[in-house]
Amino acid sequence: SFDLTCVWQYLLVELVAQSSRYGSLWPLPQKVQLSDVSFKLTTSSFRIVDAKESSAGPSCSLLQNAYRRYYDYIFENAKKSWQAKGKRTGPSELGELQVWITSADSECDGYPSVTSDESCLETFSQLVYKDEFGTKNINQTTISDFPRFAHRGILLDSSRHFLPIKVILANLETMAMNKFNVFHWHIVDDQSFPYLSRTFPQLSQKGAYHPYTHVYTPADVKMVIEFARLRGIRVVPEYDTPGHTQSWGKGQADLLTPCYAGSKPSGAFGPVNPILNTTYDFMTQFFKEISTVFPDAYIHLGGDEVDFTCWKSNPDIQKFMEQQGFGQDYSKLESFYIQKLLNIVSTTNKGYMIWQEVFDNGLKPDTVVHVWIGGATDEEMHKVTGAGYTTILSAPWYLDYISYGQDWQKYYKVEPLSFNGTEEQKKLVIGGEACLWGEYVDATNLTPRLWPRASAVAERLWSAKDVTDISDAFNRLSAHRCRMVERDIPAEPLFSSYCPHEYKGV
Amino acid sequence: SFDLTCVWQYLLVELVAQSSRYGSLWPLPQKVQLSDVSFKLTTSSFRIVDAKESSAGPSCSLLQNAYRRYYDYIFENAKKSWQAKGKRTGPSELGELQVWITSADSECDGYPSVTSDESCLETFSQLVYKDEFGTKNINQTTISDFPRFAHRGILLDSSRHFLPIKVILANLETMAMNKFNVFHWHIVDDQSFPYLSRTFPQLSQKGAYHPYTHVYTPADVKMVIEFARLRGIRVVPEYDTPGHTQSWGKGQADLLTPCYAGSKPSGAFGPVNPILNTTYDFMTQFFKEISTVFPDAYIHLGGDEVDFTCWKSNPDIQKFMEQQGFGQDYSKLESFYIQKLLNIVSTTNKGYMIWQEVFDNGLKPDTVVHVWIGGATDEEMHKVTGAGYTTILSAPWYLDYISYGQDWQKYYKVEPLSFNGTEEQKKLVIGGEACLWGEYVDATNLTPRLWPRASAVAERLWSAKDVTDISDAFNRLSAHRCRMVERDIPAEPLFSSYCPHEYKGV
Repeated sequence: SFDLTCVWQYLLVELVAQSSRYGSLWPLPQKVQLSDVSFKLTTSSFRIVDAKESSAGPSCSLLQNAYRRYYDYIFENAKKSWQAKGKRTGPSELGELQVWITSADSECDGYPSVTSDESCLETFSQLVYKDEFGTKNINQTTISDFPRFAHRGILLDSSRHFLPIKVILANLETMAMNKFNVFHWHIVDDQSFPYLSRTFPQLSQKGAYHPYTHVYTPADVKMVIEFARLRGIRVVPEYDTPGHTQSWGKGQADLLTPCYAGSKPSGAFGPVNPILNTTYDFMTQFFKEISTVFPDAYIHLGGDEVDFTCWKSNPDIQKFMEQQGFGQDYSKLESFYIQKLLNIVSTTNKGYMIWQEVFDNGLKPDTVVHVWIGGATDEEMHKVTGAGYTTILSAPWYLDYISYGQDWQKYYKVEPLSFNGTEEQKKLVIGGEACLWGEYVDATNLTPRLWPRASAVAERLWSAKDVTDISDAFNRLSAHRCRMVERDIPAEPLFSSYCPHEYKGV
Repeated sequence: SFDLTCVWQYLLVELVAQSSRYGSLWPLPQKVQLSDVSFKLTTSSFRIVDAKESSAGPSCSLLQNAYRRYYDYIFENAKKSWQAKGKRTGPSELGELQVWITSADSECDGYPSVTSDESCLETFSQLVYKDEFGTKNINQTTISDFPRFAHRGILLDSSRHFLPIKVILANLETMAMNKFNVFHWHIVDDQSFPYLSRTFPQLSQKGAYHPYTHVYTPADVKMVIEFARLRGIRVVPEYDTPGHTQSWGKGQADLLTPCYAGSKPSGAFGPVNPILNTTYDFMTQFFKEISTVFPDAYIHLGGDEVDFTCWKSNPDIQKFMEQQGFGQDYSKLESFYIQKLLNIVSTTNKGYMIWQEVFDNGLKPDTVVHVWIGGATDEEMHKVTGAGYTTILSAPWYLDYISYGQDWQKYYKVEPLSFNGTEEQKKLVIGGEACLWGEYVDATNLTPRLWPRASAVAERLWSAKDVTDISDAFNRLSAHRCRMVERDIPAEPLFSSYCPHEYKGV
């Protein structure tokens, strides 16, 4: 794990009126003690350094990279303008931010895990403000911080629309600003298969929107993972089967179930064909590749919305159902498939996450269940945790469902542990994910649609349970969204307002 | 008027399968006859030239400017890449597009008016397509075209959020791609007064979000008007009074009505104070400036949503009501103000448009009435046209009201003349406007939220009444939105899909 402590040294004075007591801090740290004592920061002398007690040194490229990034954010893209160098630190000036890694294992070269602690550099940068002379200041502040939930994710969907790498990276950067730590990459689906598989290159060759311009090459995927790693973000890929697989069928013969119209194949295909050995041979090879390409300990295996119509129409499937004694209960066939798939993935030493339907249809005990269906969410949470499963909540956070007005408040007001259950059950809820499904978003509109709406989810998953003051949240979030804009992220406005620096793009 | 005829000369052959019979034409011309005969266009030899019969020549900078712009669109930013020059026209190659201005007055140096005819260059560029070798082709096509409605507008609001000039220009460019011809600039409102007035500079000095970074200088306004003029777009500014004027009050003492709490002023202010002579002196000077800054024949004077609470609380207003014999009918006071305002604006020789409430409260006969309130729109259209007023429709096209899914279809299905009325009444409906009010949009998200949703309105206002096939519209609009994306406009997707060239920004 990655226990990071920041120590900053102070020496004196100026108070800037801010709308919220807590300025623009987002998400709100667990404990904040502010003071009126302020210090100046100058580009010429301010430094971010390893504390001498730190277990990580200058060879930790992850930290060095973060220092450069946050130095730049603190001084608003300082590298773009000329700076005097070598000036000594003056009075009332903050000379350095010491970063003290207290854990033995600093994770400098490893990948973030579900237990990783978070960097405080973002928090430090959020405390810096400009006085009326344009000087950067920070007030003496004591912060004790840790996330309420370990799993704080964003789901992006690169199948309904292909998302250029540039868009994915910009959103990873913004995730870090909001202390999200899981990128749930819903990479393929019915509509397209943009993942370029080394083992089965025909999957994207035939299944992507375009085999060259609309695919993620191995180098692209590596870049996404490394960019995320440097920001403390895990990349959990989703390969959803047996439904949502139309695009897989284009490049892999016999993978999908042929649907029948009466006694003849109709030409259409349904979910993955669960009765052929070739299906499991394919899945074995495919997930072996996936388990090496993606370093995270988990893979999301989907399993949602399996339509039984095609299976029912197919005489070979019918015969198989009879042989297995499944009667007319096609959910048993689904479970049959899923169990075999989970066994395959288990051999890769990965954990797996699945959508809630798989739980509803029976499941191995070490699975992480992802609750997404609205309406009876509390009941489902009660049942899933009651059965002892680790759980992730998304049902109230489907950000693709847009509506007029300040819908961030709706996301903000969710209490993930509001369901009926014991303390033990509640501990099984390790977090949640904001989902932005891709039917209506692509490179043109994804980023402003996601931010700052997802920021509301970020605070709910990070801050203490009693941080629920909507009006204080509005003030901080307004400032936080202007900060995102200043950092070149087109985060949309909450309401009539302005930012000191408006977005520069179109 | 500006009767523009395009003549293109053909010489042979290739048919590219397209989803719609009409390819990507948007809005659909009144009459299109397609053929399979195709011609190639090459950057080296294709030219757009004045027809020898044209009344406009090389000195018409408006046309020369449009030729350059469309040459560039036809060859996808040809100027960015190296091109062989001076090649002769080959067989099956289209050598030139002749533009033939048939009217005596070519409007080269003038401003577009409500009767201006439209350029066919956009249509020509929409007919050009790439074959599988990347060559640009156009099929022999006969088009007869004219708009169904003369007034086809977009309302943008630069008060709730300041819109950088770059954003306004990008949207004017996109308006031209969609054959919109009126930019209704809702420039000021309660929230801010970004218009820098030469006569009353304190209005923006005090009333803008920021007096330097969030204002439109005279040079900015000129640039917007000229950019629009070159694209056949009128700029109709709106200065909404007597309500929606909180920001005016900050820089102009005594302009707004002091509200009372009991017998004392509460410190708050209401609508423009209609009982002071100084109010009308101010309006006279102010609209004299506006009438010279904006060359269009019309000014929009607003007049919507006047809240009488503050007027009712003020003892001086109460006394005035009594003197005038208005009783307790404050709508009479509103009419009193509006009549005086209209008289003032009449002396500037401008026509005026107003929101429907002003009609509801009584009005001079030469006013253009803008219908915006949903619910009983047909009834209002019936009444307004029945009273003989020229009318513009916006009620069904409030694009700031977003919802999940393909809401463009809702905008598309509107029939502006569906109300009960005579032929005479229907002729009074000169068009409509799509309104994107500014509470929830700024530079970060305005453009993808407006396009292609506003394109649905564009076709409704341009094409023949019977162009209502949603599925054909979907096909053409999908292609049209990808064309906008290719032209660097972040127009959002209609549904799961891809564009050959995805948006390059973030």
